Amino acid sequence: MTSTEMDYSKVGEYMYQLLKELFPICRSITGEGVRETLRIIQKHIPIKIHGIPSGTKVFDWEVPKEWNIKDAYIMDEEGNKIVDFKKNNLHVVGYSIPVDKTVNLEELESHLYSIEDQPEAIPYITSYYKERWGFCISHNQRKKLKDGNYRVYIDSSLKDGYLNYAELIIPGRTSKEIFLSTYICHPSMANNELSGPVLLTYLAKWVMSEPRKFSYRLVFIPETIGSITYLSQNYKEMKENIIAGYNLTCVGDNRAYSFMPSRYGNTYADKVALNVLRYSQPDFIQYSYLQRGSDERQYCSPGIDLPVASIMRTKYGEYPEYHTSLDNLDLVSSEGLQGSFDIYKECIELIERNEKYKIKCLGEPQLGKRGLYPTLSTKDSGRIVRDMMNFIAYADGKNDLIDISNIIGVPARSLYPIIEKLEGSGLLTKEAVEVM
Amino acid sequence: MTSTEMDYSKVGEYMYQLLKELFPICRSITGEGVRETLRIIQKHIPIKIHGIPSGTKVFDWEVPKEWNIKDAYIMDEEGNKIVDFKKNNLHVVGYSIPVDKTVNLEELESHLYSIEDQPEAIPYITSYYKERWGFCISHNQRKKLKDGNYRVYIDSSLKDGYLNYAELIIPGRTSKEIFLSTYICHPSMANNELSGPVLLTYLAKWVMSEPRKFSYRLVFIPETIGSITYLSQNYKEMKENIIAGYNLTCVGDNRAYSFMPSRYGNTYADKVALNVLRYSQPDFIQYSYLQRGSDERQYCSPGIDLPVASIMRTKYGEYPEYHTSLDNLDLVSSEGLQGSFDIYKECIELIERNEKYKIKCLGEPQLGKRGLYPTLSTKDSGRIVRDMMNFIAYADGKNDLIDISNIIGVPARSLYPIIEKLEGSGLLTKEAVEVM
Amino acid sequence: MTSTEMDYSKVGEYMYQLLKELFPICRSITGEGVRETLRIIQKHIPIKIHGIPSGTKVFDWEVPKEWNIKDAYIMDEEGNKIVDFKKNNLHVVGYSIPVDKTVNLEELESHLYSIEDQPEAIPYITSYYKERWGFCISHNQRKKLKDGNYRVYIDSSLKDGYLNYAELIIPGRTSKEIFLSTYICHPSMANNELSGPVLLTYLAKWVMSEPRKFSYRLVFIPETIGSITYLSQNYKEMKENIIAGYNLTCVGDNRAYSFMPSRYGNTYADKVALNVLRYSQPDFIQYSYLQRGSDERQYCSPGIDLPVASIMRTKYGEYPEYHTSLDNLDLVSSEGLQGSFDIYKECIELIERNEKYKIKCLGEPQLGKRGLYPTLSTKDSGRIVRDMMNFIAYADGKNDLIDISNIIGVPARSLYPIIEKLEGSGLLTKEAVEVM
Repeated sequence: MTSTEMDYSKVGEYMYQLLKELFPICRSITGEGVRETLRIIQKHIPIKIHGIPSGTKVFDWEVPKEWNIKDAYIMDEEGNKIVDFKKNNLHVVGYSIPVDKTVNLEELESHLYSIEDQPEAIPYITSYYKERWGFCISHNQRKKLKDGNYRVYIDSSLKDGYLNYAELIIPGRTSKEIFLSTYICHPSMANNELSGPVLLTYLAKWVMSEPRKFSYRLVFIPETIGSITYLSQNYKEMKENIIAGYNLTCVGDNRAYSFMPSRYGNTYADKVALNVLRYSQPDFIQYSYLQRGSDERQYCSPGIDLPVASIMRTKYGEYPEYHTSLDNLDLVSSEGLQGSFDIYKECIELIERNEKYKIKCLGEPQLGKRGLYPTLSTKDSGRIVRDMMNFIAYADGKNDLIDISNIIGVPARSLYPIIEKLEGSGLLTKEAVEVM
Repeated sequence: MTSTEMDYSKVGEYMYQLLKELFPICRSITGEGVRETLRIIQKHIPIKIHGIPSGTKVFDWEVPKEWNIKDAYIMDEEGNKIVDFKKNNLHVVGYSIPVDKTVNLEELESHLYSIEDQPEAIPYITSYYKERWGFCISHNQRKKLKDGNYRVYIDSSLKDGYLNYAELIIPGRTSKEIFLSTYICHPSMANNELSGPVLLTYLAKWVMSEPRKFSYRLVFIPETIGSITYLSQNYKEMKENIIAGYNLTCVGDNRAYSFMPSRYGNTYADKVALNVLRYSQPDFIQYSYLQRGSDERQYCSPGIDLPVASIMRTKYGEYPEYHTSLDNLDLVSSEGLQGSFDIYKECIELIERNEKYKIKCLGEPQLGKRGLYPTLSTKDSGRIVRDMMNFIAYADGKNDLIDISNIIGVPARSLYPIIEKLEGSGLLTKEAVEVM
Repeated sequence: MTSTEMDYSKVGEYMYQLLKELFPICRSITGEGVRETLRIIQKHIPIKIHGIPSGTKVFDWEVPKEWNIKDAYIMDEEGNKIVDFKKNNLHVVGYSIPVDKTVNLEELESHLYSIEDQPEAIPYITSYYKERWGFCISHNQRKKLKDGNYRVYIDSSLKDGYLNYAELIIPGRTSKEIFLSTYICHPSMANNELSGPVLLTYLAKWVMSEPRKFSYRLVFIPETIGSITYLSQNYKEMKENIIAGYNLTCVGDNRAYSFMPSRYGNTYADKVALNVLRYSQPDFIQYSYLQRGSDERQYCSPGIDLPVASIMRTKYGEYPEYHTSLDNLDLVSSEGLQGSFDIYKECIELIERNEKYKIKCLGEPQLGKRGLYPTLSTKDSGRIVRDMMNFIAYADGKNDLIDISNIIGVPARSLYPIIEKLEGSGLLTKEAVEVM
């Protein structure tokens, strides 16, 4: 099955399968797990994998050392591996330095992380910028630890290496770009965050399945340091070309739709997403930029000011399983992923189709002579062509399709066939939307 | 009694009498009924009647053939005229082509129109742009029709002729115009639409009863094709001169006041009407332009963009009798018409009096030395001249009278005597409002 | 104790003591009582006392004659002083002309003022601009008056003299000014109005206690005619320099906080006050400029247009004791005055500190390497530096501190230490706010 033959209304299951395949890999902001993840995605879409050396200056930051880990465990006095990285990679604090020694319970405790309120969950903890070692365990397990000695073993390395990311540029008829970003730095968690990379993979397939008006810039990066790194190398070009962008995160569960605006909530990306959500998912949750927490922090930062927003399912930080081992393969579903695919597809289609429309004639056009109007005036006939007449009333050259959709209360997608009819009748002129 | 002697607070009854006189005439968008109607109105005000030949190109449209009808009926096998145009001109579908033949019940049914939910009502149906014949009857009568043969007879003609309309230009001290439009294309119905023509007739008398600052353009036209025709011949001049206009429709019943804004609701006509309604009819119903249905569709169309709104009583489409034989002389009243007269008169007076005002002195003026302020300061004295002081506070040269009325929460008409006092004391300067 | 040693969080009691000292003096818009009041204030702060001669033209007004009063009473036939100015100076209508005669009850009644609904209260009545004499008494006393003759005696004088006011200019590093005005024309009443003058006295001490960025213009004037007089002599300079001003009135009780905006509510004074009130007194009452009644009437008048608002406790006209003898020393309190001091101090501090901030780096700064960020990422760590990150997100060079405070929902005062940390790290640039 090639991309062009794919039924994109039923790709949820494919996305779920890819997510399952990527789930066990131990990712971090650098290291072999990132590269392995990107190589698997590369089997689906022609991403280009980049590596930026440790120590490279990126804005106010510096690319950190590369972290890799082979094994880690806590062993009790009887030789039992009571905590084992190979069973769940969340057990090790991300970027833990190597350790191999025997400690008593008191010292061990100072390196343990658990959540009292979620006693079954292994928390997800990292320490990228201060050297530490530590283990994450369930609170239930922690409470059972007895006095005694424990061998703590982490076979990790923190050395000069690379920060890796992947990029896919899909050229369109114009150099103006739609930007989609997601992150590949989280270990075995599902909604946050493997849902974003698998969604972006399948959106990329769909974008490539036919010629597009706009160019597309798609990136798979580690969060924060990755977006800072990518921006530091590309932001001038990005500011020149990107008309709308979305950060794909937490798009895998099936409990809600939600929206994170850009910094002032007034970009073209916001306008498109809010129009689509208003009609397609009217119960969506509207968050404030004050509740942000992902790469919009960089893309929308002062001086960068890219038009980047996020449509999510259940937002990071807003569900109990967030950043724990409970954010697992049961939390996400093919339905959840399909819903995200559909809403992003609708946004992209709208950007591709959005124009400023203007009716050519003065006064209302005579739709009847063009077969666009019922010939018999009855008490109800006014309503029959209501949407078309309302579209025409506001097709004055000032409004784009989204404006008209917002004014007349009709989804943009319902106006596509109307526009086709009117264009077919030679009644409409159109002009490109200037969004920058 | 001459116009100048007329008591315009009691013209409701005159309007109702004129409406009764015009009611029986069979009007359509063209034909003898239109001309007869206009000739009766011409006895009251010096309108000029125009005729535009069939086939004339008017924007995207063409002036249709002229339709006339002498007689029409359905006769049963016993020779009874069971449906008779002479009893109610709604019985014939408007613009029906001639027919004279005998049909069986099945064929007859395909030419009948009735309303199941309003079994007593004869519906109002037209077919201007597709040649058809048909009869409209009550659903009760329709249900009683028996199998058998019926003679259907329509003695109509559809030939090259004229589309007629009437115009009255009343020159004022400036060439800027107030525009009032109504339509004379509906057969025997009262609220929609004989109320508009009779109101416009009496508003014209009142406008002519004294010299005016603004010029007035008043038109009696067939709806839609008439406004398109009139615009096609006059729109450049209209766009140059008209500062505010209203489409007079459904102004005859006594059940509600309502407002149809212009396309964006932001013209001077909207501003004036909303200020007047806010204080004089605060319970008025605010409609959206999406609920439009009369000649604002043309006057406000893209490229035409005239400042035209409507103050109505019960809006077309919003009352059960609409477009049926139940919209009759019982539905409208002299009180209903008087209320419409009063509210339009208040709007026009406001346009005539509206200016930008500016207080001449710095700081508050000393009203006391001019006899405009109580000399004894008591606990209550602050309130006594509150409206005057508030007017002065916002008479800063930026606000017109309507702005001030809106800001300080006082009807413009209550500010007229205050303005006169302040002007009499030499405290005010004024400047014309620029509305275009 | 010098000003610099004063604990300004505990000056309520000092203000209350000063208010008690000033309370018995019979003030009016002119006269010895005004001068005595200003001389007492002069012991605290170095105000300069000015005198403008009667008859001086001030905008649309004229400085009135100076009024002084030594004694006044109503004596009954038995020689009892049943009403005695020396017991309560509200007993005489302000600006009463001299009188010494015997009148019967009927004539006396035409010169008496009382309040039926507040039978215990002596009302406060003045007649500045029409020559009259009169007495104000409680309604209870009035009802007991018996037929008979009464000696009415007012030993007052109305002669050419001076209108006095006091001014204190405190130079700052820039010539831009913060303006504070209050009025000293009310006889023995406490909230309205001795609270304003005592608050202004102590705010002056505090302003002088350290060097300031802005200059301060502080005035103690008679209401209305005083502000008109002051403006007529200074308004050009004031319009050039004043960036924010407040009229201090009704700041002594402890029942509410309230806000009177400037004429359009859109000046820098409004912006500052509303930001401070939003966080410090969120239950404050928002009044409309239509409910104004003090010197904002002059400061905000068309053509003057100074940025002047008022933060009050319980507003004039909104409490039953207003303008009666019940507005006495029991109505105000050191707590009430302290609350007003605190809120005005917070406003002034905010004006002094407000700047437009801009983060220097692109992307988020790395707070960790500067010790501004927790080094271990845990489920909660995002919230720990939330306010700092939100400040940075909107420190884009367009927003001043108040804008950022409003956007991110954090009091400006909570952002002061954050700004200091960021400035200390060299991460911020700042630019003066342009408010004029």
